[in-house]
Amino acid sequence: MHATVDQIQPVNIQTGEEARRYLDTLTKPPGSLGTLEALAIQLSAITGELKPRVTPPAVIVFAADHGVAAEGVSAFPQAVTAQMVANFANGGAAINVFARQINAHLEVVDVGVVSDVEAPGVVVDKIRRASGNIAIKNAMLPEQAEAAIEVGINAVARAQKAGCRSVIVGEMGIANTTASSAMLAAFTGTPVAQVVGAGTGLDSQQQTHKVDVIQRALAARVYQADEPLSVLAALGGLEIAAMTGAYLAAAAYRLPAIVDGFIASVAALTACRICPAVRGYLIFGHRSEEPGHGVVLDALEATPLLALGMRLGEGSGAALAFPLLQAATAMMAEMATFTSAGIADKAP
Amino acid sequence: MHATVDQIQPVNIQTGEEARRYLDTLTKPPGSLGTLEALAIQLSAITGELKPRVTPPAVIVFAADHGVAAEGVSAFPQAVTAQMVANFANGGAAINVFARQINAHLEVVDVGVVSDVEAPGVVVDKIRRASGNIAIKNAMLPEQAEAAIEVGINAVARAQKAGCRSVIVGEMGIANTTASSAMLAAFTGTPVAQVVGAGTGLDSQQQTHKVDVIQRALAARVYQADEPLSVLAALGGLEIAAMTGAYLAAAAYRLPAIVDGFIASVAALTACRICPAVRGYLIFGHRSEEPGHGVVLDALEATPLLALGMRLGEGSGAALAFPLLQAATAMMAEMATFTSAGIADKAP
Repeated sequence: MHATVDQIQPVNIQTGEEARRYLDTLTKPPGSLGTLEALAIQLSAITGELKPRVTPPAVIVFAADHGVAAEGVSAFPQAVTAQMVANFANGGAAINVFARQINAHLEVVDVGVVSDVEAPGVVVDKIRRASGNIAIKNAMLPEQAEAAIEVGINAVARAQKAGCRSVIVGEMGIANTTASSAMLAAFTGTPVAQVVGAGTGLDSQQQTHKVDVIQRALAARVYQADEPLSVLAALGGLEIAAMTGAYLAAAAYRLPAIVDGFIASVAALTACRICPAVRGYLIFGHRSEEPGHGVVLDALEATPLLALGMRLGEGSGAALAFPLLQAATAMMAEMATFTSAGIADKAP
Repeated sequence: MHATVDQIQPVNIQTGEEARRYLDTLTKPPGSLGTLEALAIQLSAITGELKPRVTPPAVIVFAADHGVAAEGVSAFPQAVTAQMVANFANGGAAINVFARQINAHLEVVDVGVVSDVEAPGVVVDKIRRASGNIAIKNAMLPEQAEAAIEVGINAVARAQKAGCRSVIVGEMGIANTTASSAMLAAFTGTPVAQVVGAGTGLDSQQQTHKVDVIQRALAARVYQADEPLSVLAALGGLEIAAMTGAYLAAAAYRLPAIVDGFIASVAALTACRICPAVRGYLIFGHRSEEPGHGVVLDALEATPLLALGMRLGEGSGAALAFPLLQAATAMMAEMATFTSAGIADKAP
């Protein structure tokens, strides 16, 4: 991890400014493409190129189980984690469909599923079989958190070597909104009731129980809010640690990373707490319905590209946002300028 | 026009309900794909197919000039309409870039540009050279409004014949936010100051002038708010009439139509006032920064898919939203069901 963090440079503000000036020469009223222009400026700053490329994207889905599932905090049984990993391997999940649409290089990484998933094509990089039940013990040892971070770093390294020019990270892990909510409360001090939502489909009584479980975990675990690794080890999850590593590596390789919903954003926050320069490499794809997402977006001063009322995870919202990055880069590469098109750019 | 209106059937609610039930069998928590699920249901209702297809889309850009440009209501000179049509023909405008990204069938139709545009590939279907200056006379004769509507109907007929399965309509016409604002105020009774914005880049003094011009037009022109053709003829524009026709034709052919920003939405409102069943065929792509857009969206009870702070027109916002329609149809066609994937769909 430290080698990767040492490689991270701030984004290139100068190229971003160059992009901003170039945008005003294109055949459109200045600023009229709104967020797409801001996106183009950020992509130029990330890559250091005036006309950056973002294709092909990598979609990396990290899967792990959570001991806290035993507390009855999810609408689905733990077995679903492994079943969904098999579904990813067979191409039948939402993220498969959306990854195909954007011609992504898709990889599924088992970083801590309880069972052995019998599915071809899944990268098995298991640090342990599920995290500990945070209501009664730490999620993992600090060295396991670091090892899981390395799993994420290695996955992005493979994607970069395969020629991917942007990174989408997704997750699968029954009960992982519980771990994420606990981490977010620990990092920000936000009352637990404000970060907990329906997850994959809890009613209000079940949500109250979930709040109670998280409050017990926060009271019983030992961590330092300003030591991200201690929060990950005490309250986190193996896929959340891997995602944290993936964001660190994306920044180190100067690759734009499109952040998905709540869980992905908590991992992104963790990466930014480890190395604040990561923030410049992050593009937020989607505003989740999970209430905690608003809290973590505020903490990161982030506004997602899409708000479609989704709450699925898997990287699905980030994948749906990807065509907007393509559009931003195509705008820079292909639009005519007022001069080249012979168009009057001001009122007489 | 009347033959087209007579063909319009309401969308198929039954197929929509079938789609809703099918969505809950797919490997995701029920409702977790939010707006994308609503979109899939609407696309099924529009096409009458459980697994509809929307590719390839047609992008049709209608261009016309506006006599009211003489009142100094735009940040750009009138000549820019023709210059931008040439830019469309040469492939250098934003809509060209975004249309290429979605593999659209792009057509540019001159329905009323002042000058003769010397550009290959532009369909010339000129009803007249610019509309009249609405501050001092009617925009056009009622029969010209009907003829311009036919231009739009014919363009969609060509697209449908070419195999297009969805329709995006865009516009180019210096001063057309003035005409659209006047029409919207006429249709809804909203105070002019509430519907007028910066257009392509007016300062606040210029906006006050624009409000004044529109108020003069509304006071001096004769129309009936409940007779859409009279509003079009008195206050509208040739490309706005053509867009109205395009939405009517899309509904008649049961093709989903993705509505762009402010001007497109006013044309869509006009089409719905002519035939309310059109509404079911409309998908709103983008929330424009133009303040009048909120008013027309309210009148249509519409929530756009995207909100990216854009205010360009040309169909650009609708084209950027198109990948979400593709994703919705791919979700229906390609996702595994809980049964087919052998996944537990409830807590034990």
